[in-house]
Amino acid sequence: MRATTIHAPGDIRFEEVPDPRIELPTDAIVKVVAGCICGSDLWPYRGENDVTAGATIGHECVGVVEEVGADVRETKVGDFVIVPFCHCDNTCAHCRAGVQSACVNLGMTQSGQGEYARVAQADGSLVATDGMPDERLIPSLLALTDVMATGWHAAVAAGVQPGHTAVVVGDGAVGLSGVLAAAQMGAERVIAMSRHEPRQEIARAFGATDIVAERGKEGEARIADLTDGIGADAVLECVGTDAAMRTAFTVARPGSTVGFVGVPHGVELPVGRMFQKNVGLAGGMAPVRRYLPDLLERVLSGAIDPGRVFDLTLPMAESAEGYRAMDERRAIKVLLQP
Amino acid sequence: MRATTIHAPGDIRFEEVPDPRIELPTDAIVKVVAGCICGSDLWPYRGENDVTAGATIGHECVGVVEEVGADVRETKVGDFVIVPFCHCDNTCAHCRAGVQSACVNLGMTQSGQGEYARVAQADGSLVATDGMPDERLIPSLLALTDVMATGWHAAVAAGVQPGHTAVVVGDGAVGLSGVLAAAQMGAERVIAMSRHEPRQEIARAFGATDIVAERGKEGEARIADLTDGIGADAVLECVGTDAAMRTAFTVARPGSTVGFVGVPHGVELPVGRMFQKNVGLAGGMAPVRRYLPDLLERVLSGAIDPGRVFDLTLPMAESAEGYRAMDERRAIKVLLQP
Repeated sequence: MRATTIHAPGDIRFEEVPDPRIELPTDAIVKVVAGCICGSDLWPYRGENDVTAGATIGHECVGVVEEVGADVRETKVGDFVIVPFCHCDNTCAHCRAGVQSACVNLGMTQSGQGEYARVAQADGSLVATDGMPDERLIPSLLALTDVMATGWHAAVAAGVQPGHTAVVVGDGAVGLSGVLAAAQMGAERVIAMSRHEPRQEIARAFGATDIVAERGKEGEARIADLTDGIGADAVLECVGTDAAMRTAFTVARPGSTVGFVGVPHGVELPVGRMFQKNVGLAGGMAPVRRYLPDLLERVLSGAIDPGRVFDLTLPMAESAEGYRAMDERRAIKVLLQP
Repeated sequence: MRATTIHAPGDIRFEEVPDPRIELPTDAIVKVVAGCICGSDLWPYRGENDVTAGATIGHECVGVVEEVGADVRETKVGDFVIVPFCHCDNTCAHCRAGVQSACVNLGMTQSGQGEYARVAQADGSLVATDGMPDERLIPSLLALTDVMATGWHAAVAAGVQPGHTAVVVGDGAVGLSGVLAAAQMGAERVIAMSRHEPRQEIARAFGATDIVAERGKEGEARIADLTDGIGADAVLECVGTDAAMRTAFTVARPGSTVGFVGVPHGVELPVGRMFQKNVGLAGGMAPVRRYLPDLLERVLSGAIDPGRVFDLTLPMAESAEGYRAMDERRAIKVLLQP
C-alpha cells in the first residue's frame, strides 16, 4: 500500500510500504476513508522527537473494516469504524477504570495517513456507526479519533462544571475542541486564548464567550481582570510547552485543576505555586474509547460539529504539503483523503 | 511573654519576646494552653529554609481567648479555641470555595510555641469548644490545628473513596494522620509506608491494614505486589521530598491522584509519567478551617484520637530539646506546655 512516512525532520513522503496485516487474532485491518495530521505529528517533523527513518506516521483515521483476526467477535468486515488513536481491550482493570490509554494491551494506530491501518484489540477499540455515515459527517467522525476526545479529556480532567468560568490555553485543534467540550459541559464562560483570527472565529462558533489575544503576562493579566482577580474555575492546557503550562497555573483560581493534554515538552511544573495555591494537575493521554459512544451520539444528533477544525483537505499523496501548512500555521488541521 | 525562638539552624531558645497585641480590630490574642512542633519547623532548624535570627517559631496551638479586637463579634474572651495554623476570614471567594489557605486575608500563627499568640481574622479562623474541654482531649484538639487537618487534606485531595486501596507515603505525624483520614473515609485497604516500629504501631491503630517497611524501588515493588500490579487507587504524599514524590507517582494506578501536603523541597514533578499514566496531583497547604467543624465532632464523639501522634510532652521552656528529639527521630511529634 501507499502511506505517509517520515525520513527525517521536515522530510515527509507518501510511498510504498508493506501492507499492514493481521498479527494477532484480536487485530483488524481498516481501509482508511479519511486520515489527518495531528499537532503531535509536528514534534518529530520539527525535530523535537526522535525519528525512525522511513517509519509510517499518522494515528488518526476512520474507515471500513477490511479484515478481522480469528478472535474478533463484534467488529465485522464492512463496518464503518472510528479508530481511537490508542487501541485498548476495554476489559482490563485500567480500561474498566476509564483509563483506556493505559490499557495493558495498549496499541496505537501506525499508518493513519496511509491506505490501510492495523488496529490491535479491534473489539475493544473500534466503535462502528450504524451503516455508512453521510459524507459530510466524515470530518466530525474523524475528529473523534483524537482531537475532539482529547479536548474533551482536558475539560473532564479540569473538572469543568455548569456555571464555571473555563480558560483554554492553546488555539490549535485540541484547544478549539476543548472550548467546545467546556461549552458542552455547561461552562457559563469560556475564555479562549487565541491571537489568530480564523481560530478565534471557530472558538466563538464552538462556544467561547471571551477571546484573549494577548500571551504571557499580558494575557494572564487580562484573565485576572475578566475573573475579578479570582482566577478561572477550570483551566485546559492544550499545548504542552512550559510557557503554556505557566500561564495555565497563573490563571487558575486556588482549589481548581489544570487539565492537561498537550504532550509535555520541556515542561517544569511549578510545584511550589501548586502547593501554595492548591491548584492541581490532571489529565494526560486521552482515553479516547471512554468518550467515543457519547461523542458519537453528539455528532450524530448535530449537538457538536468538531470537524470544523479541518480547514484544509488534501489528497494523501500531498501529505507533505499538509505538514508544511500546519507547521507554518497556514492550516489549523489537515484532513487527508486516500 | 516567653516564647520559642530560632536564632540559626539548630539554635532554638525559649526567651522573653514582646507580647503579641491586637494589631487589627479583627484580631484576637489567645493564651496558649498547648502548642507543638511541626515537621515543617524542622526545615529552618535543619537550615533548609532561611532563618530570621530571633524570630518566634511555632504555628500550632490551642488556648483560651484573652482579648479580642473591636470588630470581633463571635469569638468571646474566655472561649477555648482551636487555632488553625492558617488564619482566614472565611468569607472571601477562596474561603467560600473551601480553600481557606488561600484566603485574601491569610494570616499565620507566629508564636504557637509561646505563652500567647495573635490570631488574625479571629471570627473567621477560630473554632471554640462548648466550654472547657477535658484535659485528656487536649492533644487531639491540638492535632486539629494542623497535622490532622493536613493528613485529612491529603486524603481529600487524593480522592479517597470507600473501598479504595490507599497508600500513604511518609510516617511522620502527617502521614499517620493521613492513614487515619483514609480509614475514616472508608478505604478498604490502607498501606502505610513506614520502617519505624513505634510509627507502624500508631499506623495500625489508626487503620493501616498493611505496612511496607521498604523504601524506594523495593517499597514500590512491594506495593505493586499488594495491588496485583494495578497500583493504588489513591496516594497520599506526606513528606515533601523528591524521593517521596517519585514513590507516590510510581505506586499510583493510572487515573488516580496523588494528594500532596508535604511542603515541597527539591521536588521535580515527573510530568512525562503523569501524562502517560494519567496520574494527577492535587493538594497543597491545608485549608484547616474547612475541616475543623467535622474533625472536632469526630474527636468529641471519640471516632478519632489524632492526639496519639504526640509521643513526647515537654514544658515549653525545654522546646530546644523537643526540636532535638524530633530532628533525631526520637519523637514523632512533641507537645509543649507553657
